[in-house]
Amino acid sequence: MTTLKLRKIAIDTYKENVAYLHRDCPLYHTEGFQALNKIEIWDGDGRAPVIAVLNIVDDENIVAPDELGLCERTFRQFGVTEGESVSINHATPPASILAVHSKIAGNSLSADDYLNICKDIVANRYSKIEIAAFLVGTAESGLEREEILYLTQAMVATGETLDWEESLVVDKHCIGGIPGNRTTMIVTPIIAAHGMLMPKTSSRAITSPAGTADTMEVLANVDLPLDKLHSILRHQRAFIAWGGTAKLAPADDFFISVSRPLSLDSSSQMIASILSKKVAAGSTHLLIDIPIGPSAKVKSQSHALKLRKMFEYVGDRMGLEIDVVITDGKQPVGRGIGPVLEVRDVMQILQNDPEAPRDLREKSLQLAGRILEFDPDVRGGEGYKLACNILESGRALDKMQSIIKAQGENTEPALLGKLKHTVTALENGTVEAIDNLQMAKIARLAGSPMDKGAGVDLHKKIGDQVSQGDPLYTIYAEINADFNFAKDSSDKNNGYRIESSNQTSCQT
Amino acid sequence: MTTLKLRKIAIDTYKENVAYLHRDCPLYHTEGFQALNKIEIWDGDGRAPVIAVLNIVDDENIVAPDELGLCERTFRQFGVTEGESVSINHATPPASILAVHSKIAGNSLSADDYLNICKDIVANRYSKIEIAAFLVGTAESGLEREEILYLTQAMVATGETLDWEESLVVDKHCIGGIPGNRTTMIVTPIIAAHGMLMPKTSSRAITSPAGTADTMEVLANVDLPLDKLHSILRHQRAFIAWGGTAKLAPADDFFISVSRPLSLDSSSQMIASILSKKVAAGSTHLLIDIPIGPSAKVKSQSHALKLRKMFEYVGDRMGLEIDVVITDGKQPVGRGIGPVLEVRDVMQILQNDPEAPRDLREKSLQLAGRILEFDPDVRGGEGYKLACNILESGRALDKMQSIIKAQGENTEPALLGKLKHTVTALENGTVEAIDNLQMAKIARLAGSPMDKGAGVDLHKKIGDQVSQGDPLYTIYAEINADFNFAKDSSDKNNGYRIESSNQTSCQT
Repeated sequence: MTTLKLRKIAIDTYKENVAYLHRDCPLYHTEGFQALNKIEIWDGDGRAPVIAVLNIVDDENIVAPDELGLCERTFRQFGVTEGESVSINHATPPASILAVHSKIAGNSLSADDYLNICKDIVANRYSKIEIAAFLVGTAESGLEREEILYLTQAMVATGETLDWEESLVVDKHCIGGIPGNRTTMIVTPIIAAHGMLMPKTSSRAITSPAGTADTMEVLANVDLPLDKLHSILRHQRAFIAWGGTAKLAPADDFFISVSRPLSLDSSSQMIASILSKKVAAGSTHLLIDIPIGPSAKVKSQSHALKLRKMFEYVGDRMGLEIDVVITDGKQPVGRGIGPVLEVRDVMQILQNDPEAPRDLREKSLQLAGRILEFDPDVRGGEGYKLACNILESGRALDKMQSIIKAQGENTEPALLGKLKHTVTALENGTVEAIDNLQMAKIARLAGSPMDKGAGVDLHKKIGDQVSQGDPLYTIYAEINADFNFAKDSSDKNNGYRIESSNQTSCQT
Repeated sequence: MTTLKLRKIAIDTYKENVAYLHRDCPLYHTEGFQALNKIEIWDGDGRAPVIAVLNIVDDENIVAPDELGLCERTFRQFGVTEGESVSINHATPPASILAVHSKIAGNSLSADDYLNICKDIVANRYSKIEIAAFLVGTAESGLEREEILYLTQAMVATGETLDWEESLVVDKHCIGGIPGNRTTMIVTPIIAAHGMLMPKTSSRAITSPAGTADTMEVLANVDLPLDKLHSILRHQRAFIAWGGTAKLAPADDFFISVSRPLSLDSSSQMIASILSKKVAAGSTHLLIDIPIGPSAKVKSQSHALKLRKMFEYVGDRMGLEIDVVITDGKQPVGRGIGPVLEVRDVMQILQNDPEAPRDLREKSLQLAGRILEFDPDVRGGEGYKLACNILESGRALDKMQSIIKAQGENTEPALLGKLKHTVTALENGTVEAIDNLQMAKIARLAGSPMDKGAGVDLHKKIGDQVSQGDPLYTIYAEINADFNFAKDSSDKNNGYRIESSNQTSCQT
């Protein structure tokens, strides 16, 4: 069999494996390879093949006819070295794609179907368009609740799982959509200070201006190896790390790499994504926060209840105890939107600063209270008081500082963006509504979360009186182009609805 | 504004525009570009920007920090030269993607929505996963028939249209799925010999072993510029060319580039695809052939009737006169499957060779007869007789030879594949069924249509008596790997169902 010598190609194709083959390579002709074909690359050591998309090269300076070019990332994934001999063949289409077609045709799939799909996906056998077909096919008509269970189980089964060797391992999750809402960084140290185990693996932002991992990263390293996480947990009872490191439910990362650019948003996918990550992360008890509001992800009490039932259905069958709280999602929580600004809010609360945003403090205490009540020794209804006590005594702040030190303190934390623009009220009146989506959009356009110091700082919230010219919020950015995008968007729609004072006084 | 010098990169990425930027390019940092971002590339001449996917390069031998690398194909599409200065910026997501999300959520879209989607797609603003989302979103729940009309109109409006300056311009189309079925190459010369105008633009194979363009290419050039097509039509009254050249309904090519690897198959897409191409190609009268059979695309009379109604609905509203014939699709038509073998069948029929496959001849005459009756001067019911007359007199053969000469005869026609394997009957009996899908699969695995000489030659058809060891069909291939794939597939399932003689004699 003809073999090829591996060569490193210094082209970064992000998460896609690309292999470069010279057009004069004998295999190109005898085997009939074409550009964009998927190929399997085998080394002699019997390792599972790596699947890559083929690009055809006409320049021997890039790759010679007896070579196969791979990027750095693929070398690492494959665990091979430059110059090593490999053989290649056509990758056969994944067998599970038939189940995807069946789903698109409107049929329900079996547990085996979901398992096979997830297996093929994590083995890199699906192209991005095949993943898109699966996601859209399952998004449109939704999934039966058994199917959500099957998908969740499959996502857990096709990755690693963690075991923290304790019977009570708590976690929390918020159904996104509310900017600022950085409760996790307050709740976690409260819970850990009480002594409960809370290994908090968080995601980076998908469509929001920041995920907890993005914000925590301002303060500490969040990209930690598993043995390090175990050691932190043993000493601190908690960490706040990026979940991506642990290879938990890895199918989800493939889904996100497609659903993110597509802005796809399906309830079934969301439930499977959340619960698979939590089960794989070894959680036994989970608090889910569903904020409701006109511009939140969930807009009505009935939708929230429907989601709760689905969470409970899947959770029960996977041995995960679930408590669901429905919260106020009418506006951003806290003042800052974007990592650096959110860290400021969080630290003000932990430091019991009287200037700290009240809404974020209050919500964090309520969530922490519910989680504390997972502890059989905490009396029903006493959690909130206990949480207040832990926060006000400074024990939560101490715990947070220990966690930061244990994870590796960021000694050069990011600063607020240098570019700054304040948006002011156009009239006198009362703030009646703040559009979560528009505020999130402005913060993202400003560069958050890629630029930690980019984002939006809110000066007024719902119910506040404003006079014409009063600052409503300030946009921060690092990069000129982003700054202009954010300003333009805010000029078109500043996200605030202000009712004139007259009207308000008539109504009252 | 910072500009970059264009450089040619000898990497073939097939139909995807890829731009290569060095990591040390100042723009990479100030503008925050990342690998796999979509960018717009502008030259100074006010041309519409080209949209490309970004790859980041760490090797100055590939591209220097003040350069932007593009492949040959993108250079051509953009109409620029090496060394020219360009500027780049982030491509904004296509506005019409919101309509795609609405479709995924189960809503109907408006005529404007479809127009905007097609405009963005032909402007290269959609990524492959966005196209996949549109196709799956419209495949799953199907489209309202008004939506099929809107999509068809949008596909026509976003491309060029042809005008042949006559009031009767005929065309035919078969709803694929039946291997061998090469009627077009017999019908077209019959119609043209009668003097009717039949500018036949055909597709290349998508999922079948050969399209008419693939097969005609064995005999003649099918890739012809528009002025040449006009001139051929004026002199010959017909041509058989590849439709891709004419930029007709170009959105369809984008759809196919995704639906093909996904093996997506939606009735709505099919109708929009067929009718948009025909209307854009200037047809006024269209005969549609819907074969029915257990392994044909359409399996039941009721499905065929439903399709007929949809064709008629859209056709009527677009001023296209449509006649639908429902034909026998129980088995391949003719003997050869694959370009070279199909050409042999076609020429035998045109030459009135007594060995010619009877079924292909008969079907072609029937279709030609129906088309001839679009001519107001042909009496209803007389078309078939007229078609026979034109074929038997040799006028169809003469016309075909003139058309081949006019298009440019292929002086070195492809030969039958050198690798050859004959599949034989395992028992005595009667051929009861031949699986179209399996025969098509074997022919494709053998290399058809990429290798013109690859394919399958059928020796037995339904109803034929066979003895154990009799040849059922022969597989031809050019490339070893393909040959083995095809043989393996045939070993697993030879595609024939043979009922033993005993049973048959009991039944008769």
